[in-house]
Amino acid sequence: MNPNLKYAFNAKSVAVIGASRNPGKIGYVVLENFVKGNFHGKVFPINPNANSILNLKCYPSISAIKENVELAVITIPGEMVPKAIEECGKKGVKACVIISAGFSEVGNTKLAEKLQAAMNKYKKMPCVGPNCLGILDTHSGIDTLFLPRYRLMRPQKGKISFISQSGALGSAILDWAGSKDYGINKFISYGNAMSTDEADLLEYLAQDKATKVICVYLEGVRNGKKFFQVAKKVSQQKPVVIIKGGMSAAGGKATASHTGSLAGNAKVFQAVVKQTGLIYAESLREVFDYARVFTSEPTPKGNKAQIITNGGGYGVLTADALEESVLELAEMSPESRKPIIAASPSYAVIKNPMDLTGDADNNRFMVAVENALKDPGVDSIILIILFQVPTLDSDIIEGMSGLLSKRKKPVLVVSAGGEFAKMHMKLLEKEGIQTFEEPVDAARALHALTYYHHGRKKKI
Amino acid sequence: MNPNLKYAFNAKSVAVIGASRNPGKIGYVVLENFVKGNFHGKVFPINPNANSILNLKCYPSISAIKENVELAVITIPGEMVPKAIEECGKKGVKACVIISAGFSEVGNTKLAEKLQAAMNKYKKMPCVGPNCLGILDTHSGIDTLFLPRYRLMRPQKGKISFISQSGALGSAILDWAGSKDYGINKFISYGNAMSTDEADLLEYLAQDKATKVICVYLEGVRNGKKFFQVAKKVSQQKPVVIIKGGMSAAGGKATASHTGSLAGNAKVFQAVVKQTGLIYAESLREVFDYARVFTSEPTPKGNKAQIITNGGGYGVLTADALEESVLELAEMSPESRKPIIAASPSYAVIKNPMDLTGDADNNRFMVAVENALKDPGVDSIILIILFQVPTLDSDIIEGMSGLLSKRKKPVLVVSAGGEFAKMHMKLLEKEGIQTFEEPVDAARALHALTYYHHGRKKKI
Repeated sequence: MNPNLKYAFNAKSVAVIGASRNPGKIGYVVLENFVKGNFHGKVFPINPNANSILNLKCYPSISAIKENVELAVITIPGEMVPKAIEECGKKGVKACVIISAGFSEVGNTKLAEKLQAAMNKYKKMPCVGPNCLGILDTHSGIDTLFLPRYRLMRPQKGKISFISQSGALGSAILDWAGSKDYGINKFISYGNAMSTDEADLLEYLAQDKATKVICVYLEGVRNGKKFFQVAKKVSQQKPVVIIKGGMSAAGGKATASHTGSLAGNAKVFQAVVKQTGLIYAESLREVFDYARVFTSEPTPKGNKAQIITNGGGYGVLTADALEESVLELAEMSPESRKPIIAASPSYAVIKNPMDLTGDADNNRFMVAVENALKDPGVDSIILIILFQVPTLDSDIIEGMSGLLSKRKKPVLVVSAGGEFAKMHMKLLEKEGIQTFEEPVDAARALHALTYYHHGRKKKI
Repeated sequence: MNPNLKYAFNAKSVAVIGASRNPGKIGYVVLENFVKGNFHGKVFPINPNANSILNLKCYPSISAIKENVELAVITIPGEMVPKAIEECGKKGVKACVIISAGFSEVGNTKLAEKLQAAMNKYKKMPCVGPNCLGILDTHSGIDTLFLPRYRLMRPQKGKISFISQSGALGSAILDWAGSKDYGINKFISYGNAMSTDEADLLEYLAQDKATKVICVYLEGVRNGKKFFQVAKKVSQQKPVVIIKGGMSAAGGKATASHTGSLAGNAKVFQAVVKQTGLIYAESLREVFDYARVFTSEPTPKGNKAQIITNGGGYGVLTADALEESVLELAEMSPESRKPIIAASPSYAVIKNPMDLTGDADNNRFMVAVENALKDPGVDSIILIILFQVPTLDSDIIEGMSGLLSKRKKPVLVVSAGGEFAKMHMKLLEKEGIQTFEEPVDAARALHALTYYHHGRKKKI
């Protein structure tokens, strides 16, 4: 990894090469992001045909700027990019993000070679791209995404970073994550990966203290050996959740057209996942389900999970969903079951799944969770709360939030329903408690968390 | 199946045995449903200690009513139920819904036997329950669900009927389906199934013209042979989507505590699914994903699916998701690809997946879908529209809705994102076009549809 890659995320001064006065142009949207977003450094629009854009003085070229420029964002037509890279190199720019397209992805290998030659002349200056959305850093305010904010919500600050080989997929997921209030730290769409590839970005995020978990959408790797080594090293430092396109024969063919990647054999990739300790996800929803559990939950001490529910059917489906996971059902001690039995009617089933039954009230839930948290035989809890029953009071949110605020075991909540249930789920999420609509979603997320901390090392 | 079961759904006169003046009681909520909901028949509250409830004259017992009573809903304490059933039988009531609990589910087998004896005396009067939520029929207005409307949204009218062995699970899912605007026809929580079991309900819904697809949450069957025969027969008439609790060893044990069911061997059940033609779903989300596709989509002529996308990564993931399905990628003819190629830039990939690329506008999408609909080699379409890109105009909704309004092939839409994307997805749903957030969700739903119509008969 090029050490100057940090400037792509932390630059104090940015030039937008191809800044435009036309709000419909990429060069306008990118400039606007820096001016109106939360970036606090200096911004230099470059456009030889304008005096000022968005009230900023415009420069005819990057060499015309007297001050230092740490990051250049390039939005000019493809053919002009190699020359711009040379100018950035001469100027001493630390890093570039090349949004521009028109290279190997459209079959223009000649132009790609020209760009590569320019990059090779200035090897200390890493470039992200070309043919990408670039970077969003919610903390520094670096934002090269050229999609309007009304179409792509910018997510709130958080600890999840996300690398996407596909720009459109990345933007849709970023937008979705934003609407779910999942906190994002950095998002990187790295396009053709000519100078900076997925392994470089993994390495960068590994040492980035603000990133607690790394998510990756990948179609193919540029350098298999490098990726393997980096993935293995990074997985020791923090969880890396990966979803890979092109795992099927038909999908593999499609990646060749899409990102020019050789998807490779699915079995080989599964072996890589296993040997490196990557966490594999089967859907985009799962990627973020895993990621949010990794950011919010404490490390489980082992693989014994307790299911607590007020809906028997949900308890049954959760037990079913744990079957093929690394998790096993915990067996609570008679001492910790005793107070729950005392607080429950005779028809409640104080086992695992623990069915507090449909008439459970706040107190029954509180006693159950409190004692499961205390029991040393319980490493994690899946807590199912169905809010449709009138015996449950909204105060359960405050009670549960208090009880779980300093939890030392992972507790994942399953709930489902309409507006009333969703409002309560949102309240729990605001308190840092992760909710899931489906038993199987919570079970898989808890499996991923437990697998990362225990399953990879030994059979638990 | 008892032919009088129809009165549980279509009764013109209803007695609520155990009607209460106390809004916190089940007997009040149920009566209120009939009075304030869209039920248009006669309602008789039965309560020996009240003169009137909710402005209706109260009767001391069902025998005190002079008029005919077609349906009795019983909400009195368990011990009083056997006597009430005898009174209903004497009165000539056509059918009963017994909400009351306290029978075998709490270990009171003696009371259960007493109730069974009463039921056996009046075999022409089918009972749903005891220990259940009973019935919601969005068309007739029959609504015995005792959960308040602010907690459990009543869904809109539709063609999906849903049978749930678990009341709490059923209520949460009904609430969730309501919030998604999935149209429901009938919902039945049948509890201990002493007189009417899952097979009877399947048989009833099979001949019910208003039901187009049947969804089932099941833990165990009362009579394996009867279930097998009915499931096989009903599956010929309309699709039955089933999710079963207790498929794992741990889950199976839990069903014994929950519904007293012997879950049986998972492999045996999978064989039953295969031999009867039931459609198996692995999550509650999948149950309704399948159901809404069955209600909205035309029958596919075969298994050749065309993927059309403006996000390459989503196309790749969709192709991957089809791998283990009955579906194959369609190959469009040169004639139908020609106009799409003409409407697209050279870097668009007019294959399958068809990647219209991130700068696709409305016209490119319209030409692509129009020609895929026309191509006889295409049996179904998965259409991925990412709304984050500014080249797409909101008019695409109107254009696509018009194009798809008389479609003769299934077209499922995948989209994802925040408010802007969700608003467009909602608009498509209002036009009867089903949207999915994940490629894998759409792929599985299309698989289910194609499997039901083709896969069960022969390898296609």
